[in-house]
Amino acid sequence: MAGGGPRYEKLEKAPIDPESLLLDVRKEKIDKVISQRTRTFTIVLDRLEDSFNMAAVMRTCEANGLQEVHVIINPAAPFMPNSRVAQGCDKWLDVKIYRDFDSCRAALKARGFSLYASAIREDATSLYTMRFDSKVALIFGNERDGVSPEVLAGSDGTFWIPMRGFSQSLNISAAASACVTRAISWREEHLGRVGDLTEGEAQELRERFYVLAVKQRKKIFKKAPPSSP
Amino acid sequence: MAGGGPRYEKLEKAPIDPESLLLDVRKEKIDKVISQRTRTFTIVLDRLEDSFNMAAVMRTCEANGLQEVHVIINPAAPFMPNSRVAQGCDKWLDVKIYRDFDSCRAALKARGFSLYASAIREDATSLYTMRFDSKVALIFGNERDGVSPEVLAGSDGTFWIPMRGFSQSLNISAAASACVTRAISWREEHLGRVGDLTEGEAQELRERFYVLAVKQRKKIFKKAPPSSP
Repeated sequence: MAGGGPRYEKLEKAPIDPESLLLDVRKEKIDKVISQRTRTFTIVLDRLEDSFNMAAVMRTCEANGLQEVHVIINPAAPFMPNSRVAQGCDKWLDVKIYRDFDSCRAALKARGFSLYASAIREDATSLYTMRFDSKVALIFGNERDGVSPEVLAGSDGTFWIPMRGFSQSLNISAAASACVTRAISWREEHLGRVGDLTEGEAQELRERFYVLAVKQRKKIFKKAPPSSP
Repeated sequence: MAGGGPRYEKLEKAPIDPESLLLDVRKEKIDKVISQRTRTFTIVLDRLEDSFNMAAVMRTCEANGLQEVHVIINPAAPFMPNSRVAQGCDKWLDVKIYRDFDSCRAALKARGFSLYASAIREDATSLYTMRFDSKVALIFGNERDGVSPEVLAGSDGTFWIPMRGFSQSLNISAAASACVTRAISWREEHLGRVGDLTEGEAQELRERFYVLAVKQRKKIFKKAPPSSP
């Protein structure tokens, strides 16, 4: 039963329009990022264990316009990218987590991706002869063990960054950077563009990024000291 | 005065010929590495502070055929590359240490290098439009502060890896890898070769590497458990 006090009508909350809360310069930045975004080149991290590497790779991907990073979790090491290195870039990414390679492979194959596993051996395809004009996912393996046998068996091929010294491999953050920058600059040079979202994908991302940017702005305002009169 | 004991003639030590102590397969590896080595493309690390980054960058350089890495020390952080990441690659490199940028600049300019400082700004030259057919040194700055004002003032120009996302920079191990692999693959594609030592430089390095390889072999033998009969 209701009590005897006065009955107020509920104030209807005005729906928030994130766009109206952002400065034009911020919206322009978001639109520019979206114009250079891709969902047709991506990387897969197969059971990494080092949080510095996880973070550095994600930052490399975000900075180069990749929207997606696919992660096969390592049962022995949680996927916890070092936040000092990641610098919050992960909120702008789709980080897709899989329990095993099979589910990752199925998801990417269903979308038409070719999968290439990083393998340190001279019969692997050189990164520098690869083409990036179709959907490609590059798979990087665990820091010590490399990619798993299932990954090798389930991929469309292997690739490597030609090693020209005594070191037999690169650190994974270095290897991923070499590959991501190569793929993106290859697209710029051969296709004349790097971003390739459909209009629908771009619109969906724009709405998400506007909301994220408003949240980020609120956080910044909360952190700022009260302004003097 | 000599004592009264017997006088043995000194056994003359036979001069060691490192070449005779190495397997052919090891010598072939060394010769192959030397054929892909360069002293005309290098990088300069300006007061780095993170031992992981120092190590990852050195490994990237060694693995891509750079013989030299130039290091301006950070008074607040000793140059101590993380050994787990470096994996001993530094013994195959010439790591040149300088107290300040002026001495580094003087040494490289005297040899005809152009110096380009990494700077995160859109008016810097894109890495992807740079040519690498002359002597080029790329300078990377401190993780937090970037390159110093003296470096900016004393360089021949600035360059950047185009940033296409919200992240405003790459981790330095990722940035150096993007640049080193770009320069080396550019040379392979445009000049048809990556190594460019003179015959004299190659011979000097061959002798050094043979000696290093013998030392490494001795270490490996010492470590190995006694073989069973």
